Amino acid sequence: VSNVSLPPIVQAIRGSRRQLARLITKIEGEQANAELAEIYPHTGQACLVGITGAPGTGKSSLVSALARHYRGLAKTVAILAVDPTSPFTGGAVLGDRIRMRDLAGDNGVFIRSMATRGSLGGLARATANIVRALDAAGFDYIIIETVGAGQSEVDIASIGQTIIVVEAPGLGDDVQAIKAGILEIADILVVNKADRPGLENTVRGLRAMLDLGHRAERLIHHGQLMPVAALPVPDENSAWQPPIMQTVATTGQGITELAAQIEAHQLYLRQSGTLQARLQASLSAELEECLRDALLAQIRQNIRAEEFAEHLAQMVDRQQTPNHVALQMLRRLTPNQT
Amino acid sequence: VSNVSLPPIVQAIRGSRRQLARLITKIEGEQANAELAEIYPHTGQACLVGITGAPGTGKSSLVSALARHYRGLAKTVAILAVDPTSPFTGGAVLGDRIRMRDLAGDNGVFIRSMATRGSLGGLARATANIVRALDAAGFDYIIIETVGAGQSEVDIASIGQTIIVVEAPGLGDDVQAIKAGILEIADILVVNKADRPGLENTVRGLRAMLDLGHRAERLIHHGQLMPVAALPVPDENSAWQPPIMQTVATTGQGITELAAQIEAHQLYLRQSGTLQARLQASLSAELEECLRDALLAQIRQNIRAEEFAEHLAQMVDRQQTPNHVALQMLRRLTPNQT
Repeated sequence: VSNVSLPPIVQAIRGSRRQLARLITKIEGEQANAELAEIYPHTGQACLVGITGAPGTGKSSLVSALARHYRGLAKTVAILAVDPTSPFTGGAVLGDRIRMRDLAGDNGVFIRSMATRGSLGGLARATANIVRALDAAGFDYIIIETVGAGQSEVDIASIGQTIIVVEAPGLGDDVQAIKAGILEIADILVVNKADRPGLENTVRGLRAMLDLGHRAERLIHHGQLMPVAALPVPDENSAWQPPIMQTVATTGQGITELAAQIEAHQLYLRQSGTLQARLQASLSAELEECLRDALLAQIRQNIRAEEFAEHLAQMVDRQQTPNHVALQMLRRLTPNQT
Repeated sequence: VSNVSLPPIVQAIRGSRRQLARLITKIEGEQANAELAEIYPHTGQACLVGITGAPGTGKSSLVSALARHYRGLAKTVAILAVDPTSPFTGGAVLGDRIRMRDLAGDNGVFIRSMATRGSLGGLARATANIVRALDAAGFDYIIIETVGAGQSEVDIASIGQTIIVVEAPGLGDDVQAIKAGILEIADILVVNKADRPGLENTVRGLRAMLDLGHRAERLIHHGQLMPVAALPVPDENSAWQPPIMQTVATTGQGITELAAQIEAHQLYLRQSGTLQARLQASLSAELEECLRDALLAQIRQNIRAEEFAEHLAQMVDRQQTPNHVALQMLRRLTPNQT
């Protein structure tokens, strides 16, 4: 095919899975700034669904079931499984992927796992950029799956548009504490394994937490360079109320209804202006992060090793705090600024 | 007492719990740079013990039991309970603290809980600085307790010296995935609730994971401004091997043995030079973070709102990536740098 003579990145955008996989690897290695600038104008078309939940809730099966549903509608689907907990869990992730074996070989489905031992910030950025690559490659739906623990949910909330939090009956009260944290970011709650005993208790528990009324404003990102257009504050009646759905992912029960709720939420995001406001906030936060990195790289270039060693010794000897040293270095490096 | 005429910060260092609590509140509000500089020379004396583990392992009871043990030796103890998961868990933390009621009223014990909905980076910094305040206030032992989920363990690894990871029999295999991530940072493993069925399985599982030999280098911080003296790489025989201890915190069983292992690990840290190397790496990382913040504050001061709005519009319209805009802004603001 004449396709082969095109630049790799164009091939990736036009459907070459091999070039797409290569691009993603490059993004993971943080060596793809030029490529990311090139694909950026092609992004913004996909529907981004984030799915999170504790281990044991069957969220991987739910992801597979949703993907199958979308394939049945002739839509293309990319699945990005992110596991920030440990390199050890590579095996578990692989095990989950095996359950999706029936989706393999279908060119309309693309599956990628990410596990990392590096910085969480780095993982979040790589995830956001990989989603852009998948978006530019034309997938109709991009499903981002993360284990629901610690900080990962904040990342998924800033990357995904519709966030699904998965629960299951009978996981025990100990999970409750962890669960509470991710409820705040849920656009749709799913009780999977709904054929198991304890369903009513779980649904009642979720309902009670939602009714607490303390559902916080979703945190898109922490801190912003400048205030952007505030998120629209819809009145109580028109604001989105997270529904509680019941599914049995292994049999497909409830998947059609879940997909309908996803569409409803996407419609809400667009009609209320929330999608645009979130995009502004999220880009502003990303700009801030890029600025920090670029500034730090500049300082790295301009400081001599001996000077650094001297500062380090002062800190180790508890003469000066890191904060104090930072202000000193900055004053010397950018004397023309206020 | 004439103490009252002293500056508040001196009172805090000399034993006033009221002034110490006020100082901590100020640190939490990130309004304590001057105070932190003042107390910094007084730090570096305390033994810093980090304790982490999943909900249900009884780690709060273990913290109480350890605190009682140290009090029996006439040592002073500060307990800092950090819960980064959610504001909702405030109740749970409070419940845990009630179990420590027998420690209340003892001036040799100081207990503080932190829960936050803000940035994880902010929480980590506040935790590190509060530990400094407790250190300067002269506590012999500072126990930092966090729920073992997500990224929190990385924070505790950079703040604590001896890290204890708590497990319990019968928590189910689903926890395994989360557990794996925190094993990497464990200096001592504790199987608490050792009187419960399933003890042998849990110990065997932990042993197997340790024997995997994949125990990664402890991540102190991600990224450093400059390379500092590399961590000493002790040969296989002299390196610290994390022991697996068995305790029943509620009855005190095994606590004396655990305390002995903590002392042994502290001795190892000092004799091997590891403590000093870690301090250098951690201060270097903190300096980098302070630099980022200070640089960003400077940019905030120097950019006009209209200019920012223009850049934001270009990003929203997908003409320019945040990374590209960041480099442009930087070029304009620091033209005299390379």
